[in-house]
Amino acid sequence: MQVIHRVAELRAALAGAENTAFVPTMGNLHRGHIALIEQARQAGRPVVASIFVNPLQFGAGEDFEHYPRTLAADCEQLAAAGTDIVFAPEPAEMYPEPQTYQVLPPLAGELCGAQRPGHFQGVATVVLKLFNMVRPRFAAFGKKDYQQLFILKGMVRQFNLPIEILEGETVRAADGLALSSRNGYLSAAERAEAPRLYATLRAIAAELAGGRRDFATLEAAAGAELTRHGWAVDYVAIRSQATLLAPQPGETALVALAAARLGGTRLIDNIEVGLPG
Amino acid sequence: MQVIHRVAELRAALAGAENTAFVPTMGNLHRGHIALIEQARQAGRPVVASIFVNPLQFGAGEDFEHYPRTLAADCEQLAAAGTDIVFAPEPAEMYPEPQTYQVLPPLAGELCGAQRPGHFQGVATVVLKLFNMVRPRFAAFGKKDYQQLFILKGMVRQFNLPIEILEGETVRAADGLALSSRNGYLSAAERAEAPRLYATLRAIAAELAGGRRDFATLEAAAGAELTRHGWAVDYVAIRSQATLLAPQPGETALVALAAARLGGTRLIDNIEVGLPG
Repeated sequence: MQVIHRVAELRAALAGAENTAFVPTMGNLHRGHIALIEQARQAGRPVVASIFVNPLQFGAGEDFEHYPRTLAADCEQLAAAGTDIVFAPEPAEMYPEPQTYQVLPPLAGELCGAQRPGHFQGVATVVLKLFNMVRPRFAAFGKKDYQQLFILKGMVRQFNLPIEILEGETVRAADGLALSSRNGYLSAAERAEAPRLYATLRAIAAELAGGRRDFATLEAAAGAELTRHGWAVDYVAIRSQATLLAPQPGETALVALAAARLGGTRLIDNIEVGLPG
Repeated sequence: MQVIHRVAELRAALAGAENTAFVPTMGNLHRGHIALIEQARQAGRPVVASIFVNPLQFGAGEDFEHYPRTLAADCEQLAAAGTDIVFAPEPAEMYPEPQTYQVLPPLAGELCGAQRPGHFQGVATVVLKLFNMVRPRFAAFGKKDYQQLFILKGMVRQFNLPIEILEGETVRAADGLALSSRNGYLSAAERAEAPRLYATLRAIAAELAGGRRDFATLEAAAGAELTRHGWAVDYVAIRSQATLLAPQPGETALVALAAARLGGTRLIDNIEVGLPG
């Protein structure tokens, strides 16, 4: 496995590759990332993983400075999973000058975007840059970051990038908590409480499957339940899978999404719900 | 020469091509475009020209509806110039859904952007889409559209597109008027007056070469001269070639740019000026 820090070296290593499968990450890898690597391996070769904590997608007061950076351990995991190339650039290599060109995606003020202005613009911009460096045929993203995946799929389609997006199912701990690098911020007590986020979403899914259609009531009740247990709720939302907007009457492919904070740690999760037609 | 209207067909025709040289146009071709085709031919093969009047870059009340569409004559010229592929998509092929992802470039509110809000965002977005369809190694743009060229060079650099931009010198009529599709809108009297735009810029260049550094005075005098002859002046501006912003003290690579309207026709032009260091 090659570990590459420079764009020019990456391009040289990938010259002529037509079947590259790419997994962009911010490092601090867990089993969710490794599942994406395995999915990428099934799709194409070489398998390229990037590790870059992207300053452009962090807001003021967010955890950019403290985001866990664990390159050596990440490389061990990636090598064991059959990764061919790790691209781990410094910020000055990704942004040799102030990034004055950005991708302006839709939905950037919705859901997570409402609390994180500029976040999805920063994500879309760095992913476009990485795509142009790696020029993959396949790229894998996890469904845990549902809005991110939605926005990147749209970017590929609307900018006509010749890339197939692979969607990775969310990998969970035994108690249901979605794996996330930010879980490492949780105290023991918070970690014990954290599975309630997914449990609350499952409860919404069950209510929807049982015929409830009063979305606003379900959202409010779920938010109140989390608040009662010490969470600061950013949102609980039932949306259309097709648009990520409020479902239209008769829409059956829905998704319930939530973002909430336990102490200083912001967690997100989601569950897809297919209603009977 | 192949004439292709569909993205999928274009991708199939270009599969495996590694040296493609691309000339994006809005059609209604003149010798300036043909010079770009010749420049592209020197750089790589196949030579691809696109003809697409991009609705995204026209504002309300601009000439999108009336922009001259002359596909058959354009194809004759392109074939004679050695073009291999013409890509001429319909708007619905370029924009099968509303384009909700856009490129946000810098300087979009400066110079021509001040009078044409959204124009450069629309240009950058369609060019990014075309680049992702054609995947050229070289792409040629004329210096007549100086700000456009500046913005697209920056986009290629900041989005890490593996494309080399070829810059075409402005092609002029014998009396100095820069060739432009919009010259066809001019009445005989306007056509006789039109060379004054470039003459005025040349006069600024001469003053700068002679040592004048009072940029604001030079700009105002040039604007007044054009106004006196019936032009409605959008701007006359002396800028840095490096930034397209006002020159810093000591900068020697300058460019004088102007946009002004004769009757209903908006013309632009520019001249680069290298001062003694």
